Amino acid sequence: MTREKLIEQIRKKQSFLCIGLDADMQKIPRHHLDVDDPVFDFNKAIIDATHQYAVAYKPNTAFYEADGVKGWTSLQKTINYLNQHYPEILTIADAKRGDIGNTSAMYAKAFFEDLAFDAVTVAPYMGKDSVEPFLNFKDKFTILLALTSNEGAYDFQTLQTDDLQLYKRVLETSKSWKNSNRLMYVVGATKAEYFKEIRKIVPDSFLLVPGVGAQGGSLQEVCKYGLNKDVGLLVNSSRGIIYASSESDFANKAAAEAEKLQLEMKQILKDYL
Amino acid sequence: MTREKLIEQIRKKQSFLCIGLDADMQKIPRHHLDVDDPVFDFNKAIIDATHQYAVAYKPNTAFYEADGVKGWTSLQKTINYLNQHYPEILTIADAKRGDIGNTSAMYAKAFFEDLAFDAVTVAPYMGKDSVEPFLNFKDKFTILLALTSNEGAYDFQTLQTDDLQLYKRVLETSKSWKNSNRLMYVVGATKAEYFKEIRKIVPDSFLLVPGVGAQGGSLQEVCKYGLNKDVGLLVNSSRGIIYASSESDFANKAAAEAEKLQLEMKQILKDYL
Repeated sequence: MTREKLIEQIRKKQSFLCIGLDADMQKIPRHHLDVDDPVFDFNKAIIDATHQYAVAYKPNTAFYEADGVKGWTSLQKTINYLNQHYPEILTIADAKRGDIGNTSAMYAKAFFEDLAFDAVTVAPYMGKDSVEPFLNFKDKFTILLALTSNEGAYDFQTLQTDDLQLYKRVLETSKSWKNSNRLMYVVGATKAEYFKEIRKIVPDSFLLVPGVGAQGGSLQEVCKYGLNKDVGLLVNSSRGIIYASSESDFANKAAAEAEKLQLEMKQILKDYL
Repeated sequence: MTREKLIEQIRKKQSFLCIGLDADMQKIPRHHLDVDDPVFDFNKAIIDATHQYAVAYKPNTAFYEADGVKGWTSLQKTINYLNQHYPEILTIADAKRGDIGNTSAMYAKAFFEDLAFDAVTVAPYMGKDSVEPFLNFKDKFTILLALTSNEGAYDFQTLQTDDLQLYKRVLETSKSWKNSNRLMYVVGATKAEYFKEIRKIVPDSFLLVPGVGAQGGSLQEVCKYGLNKDVGLLVNSSRGIIYASSESDFANKAAAEAEKLQLEMKQILKDYL
């Protein structure tokens, strides 16, 4: 997937919605559990019902790994389904990986080659040589954690370092890495007041923004300072969409929630761009 | 696994060796590739040949994920084999995970329940609520990245923050988290000169020390300041042991390398404790 194709999708669908496919066996509607692979079946229903409102899907690997080999099989089937039926949609493995160079190269292989995702989230703590192996891949995106949506973000990410707060140092330093044009950044919607500062450092980069919905972030607030000329935002909602109903109408209810967000986004794009 | 049992093993075997099971399909001896599950078969041979010299095994998840469902199956079989045949040995999933609270809880479930590892490595960037879900598990260890063995460690980990360098701030802050007695820390052997300072902050904690061997760290240097009254170190070697030979004698050669390190450790324990 190229940046141009992503922007084209956003303009066409008037949406910058990413849907988090965090299928939790405890929360999947009961009547869905009788099939062979309930998680894939659930994901498939959600994808088919919501794809016209979304430009990206983001399975978080934790929810699949919790079911072991079976879970990894569901993840494989989900990404295959997306790539086969909706190749125009950006796929993000929310994996938050990162390791020494030769090991990060194995993770890059896992997510970009074996599973064939378009993007993967990566943690910055181990620095340049832990991230660059991901950046080697052409037409793939590496989404670096900058300022996350949780309370724990204030433990280390906002610490003042020599010159900048840590998350700003991460943004600034990462720009010097090889193929840094393939970077996007995670910035939580719950930290809307930080977007102005962040846009000073990375005006052009796409930001993946979790935390709207269940975590309490505001779409309007995020867009006020986060939007750029290419839109530059992918706003994620997981629980608010996929668990909108726990009954047999879950897919329709998910579609309704997704549409609601898409319409809000359409209005925002009209107002701001 | 309790801390007491780990210390008992260390004293009994006169070893604090951890062996990294980073089975790379490209490096496994060729004659081994004809079996059903070459990676598990390779691991099994390595484990059987080296277990008397080691107190811990540490598969790095990247090497398994790179082979998708098949790789995850090999990982599952490897941990099952260890738990069944060598329950006295500490098992570490080198996964470097970390996410918002409800998601970290899923990772904890994946590694502590589904796969039944004794320990898992976790990245600190997302702070307290990304780590505490792992610490909820009794008789399990959470090994937090502090100062890693790679060059990229100098990008962010050694930045001066308000009062302390970031890795020291991570050590200090993490001590205040709930069930912090279940924490261990990753400190690279390539950073031996830092161990003295680290021991001032976490005198009693176990440190998992990668970077001896292929990465160039020195066992003697690490021990000089790293050892504490309970030994307090788990020194890892991966490539130096498991790829000691690429011929049919690989398991014997791995055993010889493991024994060499164990004898060095035995001498060190005699000299220092």
